[in-house]
Amino acid sequence: MPDIGALLGPRSVAVIGASNDISGLRGLIFKVMRSHPYAGPIYPVSRSQPEVQGETAYRSIADVPGPVDLAVLIIPSQYVLDELQRCGEAGVRAVLIITSGFAEQAGDEGRDLQAQVRETAERYDMAVCGPNSEGFASTDNALCPTFSPALNAPDKPLLPPWQPQGKVSVVAQSGAVGFSFYDRGRRKDLPFRHVVTTGNEASLAVFDLVDHMLEEDKTDVFILFLEDIKDAGRFRRVAEKALRAGKPLIATKIGRSEAGRRAAASHTGALAGTYSAYEAMLAHYGVLIGEDNEELVDIAAGFVTNAGRLPQGRRIGICTGSGGAGGWMADACVARGLEVPELDPETRALIDAHLPPYGTSQNPVDGTAQAIRKVGYGELARLTSLSDRVDGVIMVTTARDVGSYAREHDTLFRVARELEKPILCWSYTWPHPDAAALFAEAGFALYTTMRNCARTMALMADYRETRERFLRVPEIKTACEPERDRVAKALEDAEPVLCECDARPLLAAYGLGQDDGALVQSREAAMAAAEETGGPVALKVQSPDILHKTDAGALALDLSTPEAVGDAYDRLMAQATAHAPDAAIKGVLVQPMAPAGVEVILGVNRDAQFGPMLMLGLGGIHVEVLKDVVFAPVPLDPQAARHLIGRLRAAPVLDGVRGAPPADIDALADAAVRLSRFAADHAERIAEIDLNPVLVHPRGRGVSIVDALIVKTEEARD
Amino acid sequence: MPDIGALLGPRSVAVIGASNDISGLRGLIFKVMRSHPYAGPIYPVSRSQPEVQGETAYRSIADVPGPVDLAVLIIPSQYVLDELQRCGEAGVRAVLIITSGFAEQAGDEGRDLQAQVRETAERYDMAVCGPNSEGFASTDNALCPTFSPALNAPDKPLLPPWQPQGKVSVVAQSGAVGFSFYDRGRRKDLPFRHVVTTGNEASLAVFDLVDHMLEEDKTDVFILFLEDIKDAGRFRRVAEKALRAGKPLIATKIGRSEAGRRAAASHTGALAGTYSAYEAMLAHYGVLIGEDNEELVDIAAGFVTNAGRLPQGRRIGICTGSGGAGGWMADACVARGLEVPELDPETRALIDAHLPPYGTSQNPVDGTAQAIRKVGYGELARLTSLSDRVDGVIMVTTARDVGSYAREHDTLFRVARELEKPILCWSYTWPHPDAAALFAEAGFALYTTMRNCARTMALMADYRETRERFLRVPEIKTACEPERDRVAKALEDAEPVLCECDARPLLAAYGLGQDDGALVQSREAAMAAAEETGGPVALKVQSPDILHKTDAGALALDLSTPEAVGDAYDRLMAQATAHAPDAAIKGVLVQPMAPAGVEVILGVNRDAQFGPMLMLGLGGIHVEVLKDVVFAPVPLDPQAARHLIGRLRAAPVLDGVRGAPPADIDALADAAVRLSRFAADHAERIAEIDLNPVLVHPRGRGVSIVDALIVKTEEARD
Repeated sequence: MPDIGALLGPRSVAVIGASNDISGLRGLIFKVMRSHPYAGPIYPVSRSQPEVQGETAYRSIADVPGPVDLAVLIIPSQYVLDELQRCGEAGVRAVLIITSGFAEQAGDEGRDLQAQVRETAERYDMAVCGPNSEGFASTDNALCPTFSPALNAPDKPLLPPWQPQGKVSVVAQSGAVGFSFYDRGRRKDLPFRHVVTTGNEASLAVFDLVDHMLEEDKTDVFILFLEDIKDAGRFRRVAEKALRAGKPLIATKIGRSEAGRRAAASHTGALAGTYSAYEAMLAHYGVLIGEDNEELVDIAAGFVTNAGRLPQGRRIGICTGSGGAGGWMADACVARGLEVPELDPETRALIDAHLPPYGTSQNPVDGTAQAIRKVGYGELARLTSLSDRVDGVIMVTTARDVGSYAREHDTLFRVARELEKPILCWSYTWPHPDAAALFAEAGFALYTTMRNCARTMALMADYRETRERFLRVPEIKTACEPERDRVAKALEDAEPVLCECDARPLLAAYGLGQDDGALVQSREAAMAAAEETGGPVALKVQSPDILHKTDAGALALDLSTPEAVGDAYDRLMAQATAHAPDAAIKGVLVQPMAPAGVEVILGVNRDAQFGPMLMLGLGGIHVEVLKDVVFAPVPLDPQAARHLIGRLRAAPVLDGVRGAPPADIDALADAAVRLSRFAADHAERIAEIDLNPVLVHPRGRGVSIVDALIVKTEEARD
Repeated sequence: MPDIGALLGPRSVAVIGASNDISGLRGLIFKVMRSHPYAGPIYPVSRSQPEVQGETAYRSIADVPGPVDLAVLIIPSQYVLDELQRCGEAGVRAVLIITSGFAEQAGDEGRDLQAQVRETAERYDMAVCGPNSEGFASTDNALCPTFSPALNAPDKPLLPPWQPQGKVSVVAQSGAVGFSFYDRGRRKDLPFRHVVTTGNEASLAVFDLVDHMLEEDKTDVFILFLEDIKDAGRFRRVAEKALRAGKPLIATKIGRSEAGRRAAASHTGALAGTYSAYEAMLAHYGVLIGEDNEELVDIAAGFVTNAGRLPQGRRIGICTGSGGAGGWMADACVARGLEVPELDPETRALIDAHLPPYGTSQNPVDGTAQAIRKVGYGELARLTSLSDRVDGVIMVTTARDVGSYAREHDTLFRVARELEKPILCWSYTWPHPDAAALFAEAGFALYTTMRNCARTMALMADYRETRERFLRVPEIKTACEPERDRVAKALEDAEPVLCECDARPLLAAYGLGQDDGALVQSREAAMAAAEETGGPVALKVQSPDILHKTDAGALALDLSTPEAVGDAYDRLMAQATAHAPDAAIKGVLVQPMAPAGVEVILGVNRDAQFGPMLMLGLGGIHVEVLKDVVFAPVPLDPQAARHLIGRLRAAPVLDGVRGAPPADIDALADAAVRLSRFAADHAERIAEIDLNPVLVHPRGRGVSIVDALIVKTEEARD
């Protein structure tokens, strides 16, 4: 792994392609870099100019007098490769490639060039960011190799004066979007550490940088803008590391829509993949999703200002001087899964002492303008936080003027720092810059958007919960080795499609269902098998070429007499043959009928990016029509499996409805866990698994896997 | 009706309670009023001061030398009533009551006082706004009787300099929230006309003011903040008038949550009612719902700048210089039901002429920084709008600096005004004030929040669609008079609960199902009735005391033989009597079995605020467990009924799933229309109607109402 430290914290920088023309990007980037107090030398390298913006320029990286840690390339794409090699030869340790015209461009040429960039980077073990990057900014050393207008603001320091160092880092594939987080967050006095835009990611990708920053251990909160994830394994390791460290990743992944995927492909050459798989992966590791740049920044602000005091639950106290705005916030909180309970009588009495008769302490606490004048917002928030019925506080305020806050200056500072529960503030009016600065310096996140405020509180509760669940889980056990190897071998030998009679023994080896049917090839054998089974049976034609048995008339249920079984055998064989004359038929499976239960679909689909993903939904119309289906990466632990089941909109059906008893959710979770281990153990060989339906019986009675199918990957078919 | 014109456009004003102390509200309001260039006299009335802020003060309204159109009361609540009367005697035509301490206060005293305010207002036919109002602002005459800090800004004119008059009016029950719309919208150069805060609405309520403003015909777009709606009939008339006039109402109604309802009750004494009924009412009249104040203002900005060119469809072209931001916007659009299709080849060719190889014209159109420099955002938007595959354009831009826009100044102005399709702009960076002003003056809505931009475009399409649907509908016919009167009489005579045998004939009079069962009182009669019916029958015990027949064992289905019918009769009677020994049993209904169909629940519930609301959902788990149910006010026209059915999440089930044929949606819509007419005609008498289940048969085969129940209102029971 190359040294990303040399990229973000170099002792010296060369700008290859620097120019005097500050109306162009090549001049602008040099100007922006020099406008910040970076302490090391910045060498301009120019083939045509002896001097750039008053500095001696060098004709080549080789001519630069001192050692160069970082080279910034901003030259036409056809020269990039040679120059990169020259950098390697000159001992440069990191390169930032601003130049566009690589994989984001139609045709193969750019893609090939980009592959060579990667190879060259590897050959010289250089940390290479880009191409098609808009550069980065590091506030720690005031290094800003970017032409982004957001950093072309010499009048504004990189960090708020009261913040000794940055805590929030941005890593984004899009330059414009990446710096828009800085642009918007800096306005809100959010302390940034690194803002890195990775462009086409020929070599370094978003999670390489996140990993470096986690190791650096100076970033508390990450904002990520993803167009794709190039290395799923790396993502999983880094996302888990971040979650364990309690450093939230706040992200957007574009490509929810076809148009979004199109845009990503043409923008950074990203192949955006299936959004549902991304969504499941991100959710699994507690990555928090924001929908626009303002929201991502706002979420980050909440975590930064409430580090060490995330909400223990979802019960929120709201205090305000405006009854209307407080009620509105209550609605917004509840809409996001928070609760706004009435406060306890003791706390109410403490608050009531300050209220006029037309105020209320119930929650939302409406102090009215009168109580705000008397005790101030800070004290009202502190009193509200005392209630043991709330886990966090939202102060609904008006920061239009600074006057009233100046009066309660010390209280505000004390409350922001000393409150034991998290606190967020929303100003229904647009904040005066001085008031905003006062809130920020005190240590409050001051929201201008109500929804973002409520959602941040909800996400802080979510994050804490997800993280605690994650930390509680012991390492997930997979099957013991002999079993695993036996199944692997069987899968290797199997045909491309394993119909039920072939799939059952393999699944049973993982404790998934029983290998309990009898495969028969004659009417008589069917009748005998049914007799042996005892009780009503089902008959199913087994053929890798007949996957939809109902359509093919290849299925008969609830057969109680030997004659019925015999007749069904003949009928099924005739129908199946008529339906698919060329089908290879292995025989007919005779099985005991499963007892009644809630119908569930459990499956595994292979995502191009992330490999096998577990899929879960209720049967009937739920998956197909209502699209009520959830996904998760494999393997899964029992807690995560239960959480996944709970995410179904139809989950209450499992609790028992219309007189039905509660279903055996534990058994369903267990089946999901086992299937996830199966899929994880044999990830490379499995394209698809369908257990459809799985019947979930009443609590304590387990599940029945009624049908099963495994489809192998193309690769595993050879 | 009193003259609201005298409230908002008085020729003279008296401020009763005006004071010299501008640190208090009574001094502040007088100061704020005088800081704006209102042309008429503003008389201070003070019992203690001979002079207020340099103006001669009068001891009483009676002493004021000239006629007074509007009196502003800001005096302790115990004096309000006397003063109001004095105003009436003095010929004052409108009164604004700022004073708090009425119905928003716990206990009866405030509520009684408020009732007397209302009576006094009526007695003198005065337009009375408040109490507990924060006042209002009218930009037309620069009259701002309010202490809101948002209007205490003498340095900023009430309207942007390039706007000769306001177009957006705010009417809000909450003062703080009402003025927060102005505060935020004025920053964005939104041209406001009236901002009125109605407080407790002792007399004038939100829709009285909206009605006045519709008559005035100078407001194009309304922003409303509702804590309750006091007069449902008035709301319906005014909302319909606004929809017909094409003046969108953009609203929030608080009270979605219990905590929100609590807040409303204690804030303005509002009884917030059932949110689902509000939601249905607002949706029915095309009222657009925003979730926070920034969003409401942003939606208004879209309508104001695109008046006369709302989108004809949902296909959006996006143009940008940032591929990442453009793709992000595409995702946001699609998430809100818009489409982002590829542009047609002709338009692409026009655009491609300006793009570098790493840009794209597919849509999102990514011009890259290079094309933006070359042709500018305005021209790129114009070119995109030319495609016949798009109905509107979103420009994704960066307004951080003003420089580039200044270069394309004239184009931007021309595009904003001349584009035939709607256009909205989103700046991913925070706009520079000069750039924001340039966009605003040109006539663009410039969004800082991506979600709001995408949502506004979607709402503009919704609004156009809703309005066109509404305008197409002829007047809804109710039943012809004799039928209606016959049903009314029958309802009047009926017992409190009409079980199926009583309900059927009444419903059948409205064309809802058939009155086709036979009510029998003996085993033999049951068998005879079944024989006459022919085919399998159902038996149902009829008793107003047994509403859940399944639980009571009072229902038997699919009986094919005379013996089965006879036995079922005996068993049902025994079970019903055992289950409810005191139940009055009218007999057993013998009915033909209905053919198969999709199970639907159709009903009417009486909302305390809005009267009967039609309820519709699919049977099984959909209503109870998945809460997939929609409501609408009655009566309903067929188009609205179809639209309502389409709003069910489970609506695709009716299109036929899992091999089932498409269901007869037209017949279901027709049943909903007929039921809605029934409910509307007999609104006062009906507490509840349940048609559960209604079976919707395959297309062309109609519906069967399998069970029916009508419950009368308490009032109708006497």
